[in-house]
Amino acid sequence: MPMNTQILLDHRPTRKVSPANFRIVENPVPTPGPGEVLVRHQFLSLDPYMRGRLSDAKSYAKPQEVGAVMGGGAVGIVEASNNPGFKGGDAVVGMGGWQRYSVSDGNGLRVIDAKAIPIQAYLGAVGMPGVTAWYGLHRIIAPEKNETVLVSAATGAVGSVVGQLAKIAGARAVGIAGGPEKCAYAIRELGYDACVDHKSLRFAEDLKDALFNGVDGLFENVGGEPFQQALRRLNDFARVAICGLIASYEGPPTALPDMRVFLVRRIKVEGFIVSDHMNLWPQAIGELAALAAAKKLTWRETIRDGLENAPQGLVELLQGENFGKMLIRVN
Amino acid sequence: MPMNTQILLDHRPTRKVSPANFRIVENPVPTPGPGEVLVRHQFLSLDPYMRGRLSDAKSYAKPQEVGAVMGGGAVGIVEASNNPGFKGGDAVVGMGGWQRYSVSDGNGLRVIDAKAIPIQAYLGAVGMPGVTAWYGLHRIIAPEKNETVLVSAATGAVGSVVGQLAKIAGARAVGIAGGPEKCAYAIRELGYDACVDHKSLRFAEDLKDALFNGVDGLFENVGGEPFQQALRRLNDFARVAICGLIASYEGPPTALPDMRVFLVRRIKVEGFIVSDHMNLWPQAIGELAALAAAKKLTWRETIRDGLENAPQGLVELLQGENFGKMLIRVN
Repeated sequence: MPMNTQILLDHRPTRKVSPANFRIVENPVPTPGPGEVLVRHQFLSLDPYMRGRLSDAKSYAKPQEVGAVMGGGAVGIVEASNNPGFKGGDAVVGMGGWQRYSVSDGNGLRVIDAKAIPIQAYLGAVGMPGVTAWYGLHRIIAPEKNETVLVSAATGAVGSVVGQLAKIAGARAVGIAGGPEKCAYAIRELGYDACVDHKSLRFAEDLKDALFNGVDGLFENVGGEPFQQALRRLNDFARVAICGLIASYEGPPTALPDMRVFLVRRIKVEGFIVSDHMNLWPQAIGELAALAAAKKLTWRETIRDGLENAPQGLVELLQGENFGKMLIRVN
Repeated sequence: MPMNTQILLDHRPTRKVSPANFRIVENPVPTPGPGEVLVRHQFLSLDPYMRGRLSDAKSYAKPQEVGAVMGGGAVGIVEASNNPGFKGGDAVVGMGGWQRYSVSDGNGLRVIDAKAIPIQAYLGAVGMPGVTAWYGLHRIIAPEKNETVLVSAATGAVGSVVGQLAKIAGARAVGIAGGPEKCAYAIRELGYDACVDHKSLRFAEDLKDALFNGVDGLFENVGGEPFQQALRRLNDFARVAICGLIASYEGPPTALPDMRVFLVRRIKVEGFIVSDHMNLWPQAIGELAALAAAKKLTWRETIRDGLENAPQGLVELLQGENFGKMLIRVN
């Protein structure tokens, strides 16, 4: 009997998540019922939002259930289908979770074209992170030509798309990333005009130098001390899109220390979550897929092999050890 | 020779402003030159933003010049005009400053109808504070029917208009004010559904009780600890219009202690200044004047008699000792 390897949440982390919070089980591969689809996963997505779901604090999403398969995005191939919307061999993306096989009623499962674009891109630049970048940049920051857009986690799955879309929109793009290697990649491959290493002792001065025209749009993925430095560089009428605060997920909270600057500078700050805007996904995915197919959108991946390494991969993602989109290849 | 009493900024306050920061001088009443208008002031406006202009910190407005007549809104009657846009006897509103007479080239001076509405209302509900209320409520908060709008300094020149406009828009209006007298007025005269006294020891509990449906729109005029309490009551997709932070102008800064709630609750915070939106003033003033003439908009005034009391009046305003719009009657 073919078996389905699954990773369950065993118990919630108190502060830092570790692989010990999960456990691996083997169960028979499920048989799809009427209207259902069986998908064999090829890649799992690891994303910062997962840290929030591991807590049971009130949040926008229901917490991950203890004892259940860890949820998350996955791409794979339809093995069997009792649903007229899907047929065997279709490439699909959905929320299959941390397991080798998933069964879906078709809700939230989408057939994708994995010929022009690698299948795992639908978990990254042409998937949820790409739409997140698209929404925050176009709907909150809405940069005008020659405005300066600052992006934290500039080479991450979201940030790398923000930088490229900002350049396409005619803005000046400045990134913040961890380490000289990521910064060099941000400038050479992603097209950032400048990138500042937040691990450098000269960070505050370097940031000031790179932002000689100030900041008109801040796309914030990280929070913490670099965010405080970025706030000091905001221009009048700056827009701050709060997409993530990964530095605070397992660390101290990120504050806005003095609201007065928001008044004096007439600043807008908006937190957003891409799943609130499902109506815009088709437009965003369409634009991102076209850019990717035309080689106008690039990205980088950190792939860990083996489903069993998903928990460790999540730990590494939360510590910023990934370089670009973090993925698990399901062998 | 007729004399013009003027109040000059003598030296900047270090922390709290006091009448000693100003001095009174007497100068001949000026003669209007070509294209100029001479106005005799009837009322001066005292407004919280003035505190910011007394500092030389970088701000949205140029700081008040030391040794110059203190700037500010004023209404009065045209005494003599060499400008075809104005004639003797016209009621006008402009930025005449703290003096008995002002000369203007007509720029920023506006003829008003002081028959249907008392002249000093053009410094309050039908003037800059009214437009401030209108902009923040309609353009930032944009309440839907039955949403809850929370207003700090609920009986002040701005807040009292916000509450009434929120009710007209079909929202539930909850105020925060200092003391039972102001709270009673907020409910009985301004139509707030509830008003919470921030001077009460039960403030946090009372606020929670009054906000049984949470807060969808927060119109913030004050900052400080009541603002922190209000933040805890924000609903998903709440809009926070930062109009003023009077508690921080001479006190400690107001922080947003944890940005994470802005992400989890998808909250928008926007600081604004009404003078950035001059294009909307005619529409706003038109709507406010129509409401006032139809007795659908009410307000209260604290009037101090005598130009020489303007400095003390400003001190009282910053300490919240006014009840409604703070005015100086120029005898």
